[in-house]
Amino acid sequence: MPRPAPAQYLPLYLVTDTALCAPRAVADVVAAAVAAGVTCVQVRDKHAGGRDLVSLVAAVARAAEGRVPVLVDDRVDVYLAARELGARVDGVHVGQSDLPAGAVRRIVGVDAVVGLSAATPGQVAAAHALPAGTVDYLGIGAVHATATKPDHPAPLGVEGFATLAAGADLPCVAIGGITTADAAALRAAGAAGMAVVSAICAAADPAASTRDLAEAWRAPTGRRSR
Amino acid sequence: MPRPAPAQYLPLYLVTDTALCAPRAVADVVAAAVAAGVTCVQVRDKHAGGRDLVSLVAAVARAAEGRVPVLVDDRVDVYLAARELGARVDGVHVGQSDLPAGAVRRIVGVDAVVGLSAATPGQVAAAHALPAGTVDYLGIGAVHATATKPDHPAPLGVEGFATLAAGADLPCVAIGGITTADAAALRAAGAAGMAVVSAICAAADPAASTRDLAEAWRAPTGRRSR
Repeated sequence: MPRPAPAQYLPLYLVTDTALCAPRAVADVVAAAVAAGVTCVQVRDKHAGGRDLVSLVAAVARAAEGRVPVLVDDRVDVYLAARELGARVDGVHVGQSDLPAGAVRRIVGVDAVVGLSAATPGQVAAAHALPAGTVDYLGIGAVHATATKPDHPAPLGVEGFATLAAGADLPCVAIGGITTADAAALRAAGAAGMAVVSAICAAADPAASTRDLAEAWRAPTGRRSR
Repeated sequence: MPRPAPAQYLPLYLVTDTALCAPRAVADVVAAAVAAGVTCVQVRDKHAGGRDLVSLVAAVARAAEGRVPVLVDDRVDVYLAARELGARVDGVHVGQSDLPAGAVRRIVGVDAVVGLSAATPGQVAAAHALPAGTVDYLGIGAVHATATKPDHPAPLGVEGFATLAAGADLPCVAIGGITTADAAALRAAGAAGMAVVSAICAAADPAASTRDLAEAWRAPTGRRSR
């Protein structure tokens, strides 16, 4: 099966955070968010061992029911193992300190989604220098400072995102402390979508927050506040 | 190429520890240890990101020069990426919290070495319940308490190792604070080899320590002290 089109899955991209979801199960938050309009789910848990991560990915894939792509952060082996065990997972997302994107593409094959994080003009240029088809999209951030990824570089701001996205040939999803208030400016900056962690995982009502975010993305008429 | 025989590579099995090797490069310690008689090298670094780990594995593989198998701890994707990048690596070693061994074997194929850690009769029994050929050997420990793996279970002692090894159909390598003084008792207990971390990585002279360990394993006439 050919891999899905970034324009379809980038608009409202959920990155899971196990601690922020707690005491709710990640899969339960994902189920609510998918039903309410997220277009992609990336499973991220930097603290879980491989075995637990395979189980988490499988649970998220069941929750997503094939309605949106499910990606695995960093651990290409977890993606492969989850597929071996029958889970429907669609690809991986790697950062600059993870496996090199070229090796990742050769390992996962042409049918998997491969996303790559970039935070500087040099990293965007390096992504462009890869063979065509290596990477499907860029995750660009952090737009705002955020506690969910303490190792992120200095925040770019929407303006910094716009500069990087303007120089990118690949579709770009914005990440890092994104809220409904950013939707209009990010669309104007050329973003293919918004990636969120806290805005859904830490929400009292993840479905309601998802609907707000999806609505803000669809109808970005000026700045909104929640 | 068929995978190597455990009896060949288990006798003196080095597990690398980047911090204990410092300020020496891991690859330099490995080069000295391989020249002095280690029979296998497992690259373990729980703190490195995927990209750095691929580089480390490639450097160790160059240092080993194909003279002994090089295995990757935990990260099956790092094994695959290192091979994609041309490194000579021979397999992986997984623990009980890593990817399930059955999935690992399907991912790496029949030519790769797959080792599995076990610390209880239940874990040994579970390894036996896997399809034949899934796992090549068991790493059993910790024999003694050790600071290099703070998450290890309560130490087994040589007697506990002997009990587990006696119930195992697979070749067993002992790990956990092993020194030359353990060689005779471990051979008597049925060990196929000794796996060491500190005894080589933290040694002032890794080559001399390797020779001592190899000699103790070959001629285990009573208890020795260093």
